[in-house]
Amino acid sequence: MNSFKIALAQFSPHIGNIEANTAKMLEQASEAKKQNADIIVFPELSTLGYPAEDLLLRPSLNKRTQLAFQQLAEIKDIVLVFGFVNTTEDGHRYNAAAVMKDGQVLGVYNKQNLPNYSIFDEKRYFAEGRQHLVFEYLGHKFGVLICEDVWSLPTVQQLAQLNVETALVLNASPYEVGKPQHRIDTMSALVKQLNINLVYCNQVGGQDDLIFDGTSFVMGKDGKVAAQAPSFKEELFFAEFDKDQKAYKTGSIAPCLETMAEIYQSLVLATRDYVQRSGFKGVILGLSGGIDSALTLAIAADAIGPEKVQAVMMPYTYTAQISVEDAAEQAKNMGITFGIAEINPIVNSFMQTLYPFFGNAPADATEENLQARSRGTLLMALSNKFGNLVLSTGNKSELSVGYCTLYGDMVGGFAVLKDVYKTIVFELAKYRNSIAESPVIPERVITRPPSAELRPDQTDQDSLPAYDVLDAILYSYIEEDMSQDDIIAKGFDPEVVAKVIRLVDFNEYKRRQGAIGPRISSRAFSRERRYPIVNGWKPGI
Amino acid sequence: MNSFKIALAQFSPHIGNIEANTAKMLEQASEAKKQNADIIVFPELSTLGYPAEDLLLRPSLNKRTQLAFQQLAEIKDIVLVFGFVNTTEDGHRYNAAAVMKDGQVLGVYNKQNLPNYSIFDEKRYFAEGRQHLVFEYLGHKFGVLICEDVWSLPTVQQLAQLNVETALVLNASPYEVGKPQHRIDTMSALVKQLNINLVYCNQVGGQDDLIFDGTSFVMGKDGKVAAQAPSFKEELFFAEFDKDQKAYKTGSIAPCLETMAEIYQSLVLATRDYVQRSGFKGVILGLSGGIDSALTLAIAADAIGPEKVQAVMMPYTYTAQISVEDAAEQAKNMGITFGIAEINPIVNSFMQTLYPFFGNAPADATEENLQARSRGTLLMALSNKFGNLVLSTGNKSELSVGYCTLYGDMVGGFAVLKDVYKTIVFELAKYRNSIAESPVIPERVITRPPSAELRPDQTDQDSLPAYDVLDAILYSYIEEDMSQDDIIAKGFDPEVVAKVIRLVDFNEYKRRQGAIGPRISSRAFSRERRYPIVNGWKPGI
Repeated sequence: MNSFKIALAQFSPHIGNIEANTAKMLEQASEAKKQNADIIVFPELSTLGYPAEDLLLRPSLNKRTQLAFQQLAEIKDIVLVFGFVNTTEDGHRYNAAAVMKDGQVLGVYNKQNLPNYSIFDEKRYFAEGRQHLVFEYLGHKFGVLICEDVWSLPTVQQLAQLNVETALVLNASPYEVGKPQHRIDTMSALVKQLNINLVYCNQVGGQDDLIFDGTSFVMGKDGKVAAQAPSFKEELFFAEFDKDQKAYKTGSIAPCLETMAEIYQSLVLATRDYVQRSGFKGVILGLSGGIDSALTLAIAADAIGPEKVQAVMMPYTYTAQISVEDAAEQAKNMGITFGIAEINPIVNSFMQTLYPFFGNAPADATEENLQARSRGTLLMALSNKFGNLVLSTGNKSELSVGYCTLYGDMVGGFAVLKDVYKTIVFELAKYRNSIAESPVIPERVITRPPSAELRPDQTDQDSLPAYDVLDAILYSYIEEDMSQDDIIAKGFDPEVVAKVIRLVDFNEYKRRQGAIGPRISSRAFSRERRYPIVNGWKPGI
Repeated sequence: MNSFKIALAQFSPHIGNIEANTAKMLEQASEAKKQNADIIVFPELSTLGYPAEDLLLRPSLNKRTQLAFQQLAEIKDIVLVFGFVNTTEDGHRYNAAAVMKDGQVLGVYNKQNLPNYSIFDEKRYFAEGRQHLVFEYLGHKFGVLICEDVWSLPTVQQLAQLNVETALVLNASPYEVGKPQHRIDTMSALVKQLNINLVYCNQVGGQDDLIFDGTSFVMGKDGKVAAQAPSFKEELFFAEFDKDQKAYKTGSIAPCLETMAEIYQSLVLATRDYVQRSGFKGVILGLSGGIDSALTLAIAADAIGPEKVQAVMMPYTYTAQISVEDAAEQAKNMGITFGIAEINPIVNSFMQTLYPFFGNAPADATEENLQARSRGTLLMALSNKFGNLVLSTGNKSELSVGYCTLYGDMVGGFAVLKDVYKTIVFELAKYRNSIAESPVIPERVITRPPSAELRPDQTDQDSLPAYDVLDAILYSYIEEDMSQDDIIAKGFDPEVVAKVIRLVDFNEYKRRQGAIGPRISSRAFSRERRYPIVNGWKPGI
């Protein structure tokens, strides 16, 4: 048995761009060689990126993958373990890993456990592998696994029974709150039970609504982390196996983050990757003086730099003066271009045009929506003229109950807080202020009662229960799939519960037309919670 | 062997509304009994409706299904063969069929072939059945199959080898152009090969973007249709088995429709079901004098009656007088409430508000989008005030290349022509006129060159290739998954092909925020063509 050095390439692929991803893999392999690594491990499907969705069905995928193999064959004297789509001659497609050295493919492994729940649709694309891949190198016995495989006890047990000493696991494991620590805890229990070392290399980066946190690690048979990469950034890092100790030496360990820091950084990464990979030079958003837009602004500035962020305040008759002051103050605090555009003349021209239709019909949500849609149209015009992406600022609580205007405050290409409940929005704002020298979000924005300011003296709590109650009901219904009766049995007001559930069900059509936004929960709308719009399911049991 | 009578309940379930669906099934079973039927067959998952998506994951589904069984147990003296979700004690969920008589469950069949491609996600929800169900009744041997099962030769072959004389097939088979005839042709070849009778009962109705056409039938071993229900409507119909002839007697046969009639009726059904099941009292749409809104108006009026349809013309500086005339004429032809709302004052107030930001920046698509968004906001205001659903009027060609304004002409809850290419829009308009006593769509709307009228003297062909060329390229890229190089090799202008593909890829973000609309093709956007927004796939090979 020899000592050896293993590199983990925690990198952020550009989904579908096989040429660029392969070039990046070559760079990392060269750097790993320079640092005397014997083996380099990449994430799941590293040549293509994850999830590529229906790009996986394009007929030329195999041709492009072959070109990637040719490029990767140029690197000598290091073992590459990377992910690719394996299309076999009998027409099957596998989520696969290759072990390559000096241009020779030493072995191919096809993923055996294909997740097809939650955000995953792997059975739409892949056939199941049926065989393990084990190889010996430098006197050490390695096995290869791909993501879901390592969560299947029988699959890992089989590797252990084949006397594998280290399992190399290629992953594209999506982030949700607490997931980095949860993964480590679960794997720790597993390796202790099976007496096996684990090299866990995860994809990093935002892809549409999904965030991959990275947080790759190397773990000894004792269940202790020997090396760990930071969350939410690319990193080429290393672990050394010592032949005398028969164990991985303890190296650099970036600890998991505290919850609010973790969520905040995940949103920053998701926003940065979406903006940059969609080719926008900057972003624009409507700043209202409220906490949602304030937090979105802070995240945007942290993601791409304040000089690339534009904020516009669009006051109307019902906008409080302190809202304008607070918005201006935050923009100034953060060094962000700030403009004001009054919407009264626009709303008036709509009302005049509509008068022949409306007559003296009493005012209702229509007039409130006109304010929101005038603002949305202004933001889109500024976006169209100057090329900045509109960020939508609504949170998960609002979106759940439809407390938002379609084509109004919902306009935008990316909804940063889409999966963040209002109670967490407050926590994140406080967290962001806590890490700055002086608060970037004015204290008053955090402490004053939330209001959409679409009617005189309106507050959110005129229409909705208090946010801690609302979020608790929403969590039970959405994340925990509880029935109306069961939520009421927890002690909530029956009428409030019935109203909230009715609103969630009714507003599916709005959410379906909303911008995508980063998933941080275990039940995000759209990709993960797939509900029909026309839906006759009755509340109750 | 006896003679017997079999009823097929081609009905339209309300997805998720188990109580209402069960009540409807009871009504149909009573009616079938009255008409002396011995057996009644319902569509796939008839108690719940198809597809129920993540409603299938709700914990109380089993409890609700048990209640449905109790209700169905009340009907005596007729065999019920119906679809339900079978949740077993070991935690598995099956797409199942029950055979019930006099309150006794005689047998349960679990679907063996679970489609997980195209629009189907059955492996997200169901486990695979592994056993056939065969039962003898009135001296005749029946087998049960569910939808995809009958497309699997080995599965049907096994039934035939068990000496089954009639396969009862429960279906929720979605419509696409030509599918009704295609099903019959495929089944005809199958039954002749296997020497088996087929009772094929299909769901009917629109569910979000999916259309179920019904077109249920009974087919003899000779491959000939003995009875066939009409497409696109509910129908309880019957077939009689004659013991002497040992065959199903020829009964009422509603033939498959001609292509344009078929598409038109499918859109009418989809629109009616969406509007009514979403609880809207009527619809509203923007009538431009162009062919897309003209056709949408005709479909809407045919779907829910002209008295429930409101049309608004929203002219601007660039709107031709003949557009206003044609719009008014069609509304009058069809007896539809028609109003005019000039948008000049609104667009001007936007431009004035934006002047401090825009300065003297040259006009571009921004100003065009302002016109479209002013119109969209007016339509939404009228919808909010009077409770009519906004129908979006864009077609598949436009939506493919993004020749449409997000939050502008794309507003609406249902996009009737979303999956209809422009060349087919023309055919459908001509078809609709051909079945009326006098043309409902003014001839000039069909014959004048299409224009968005967002610039002086604009026509669509200033920005796009001729629609027959555009649609041919789009079809090759979207429906046939061809690469850029292969499409160019068919003889199209390389620059045009490259531009069209670039536009299709780039505009995924717009489509993602568009309204749902009825699927009539074999590759509809959204549910069926699942592409990432951030997408690095390069055109070329």
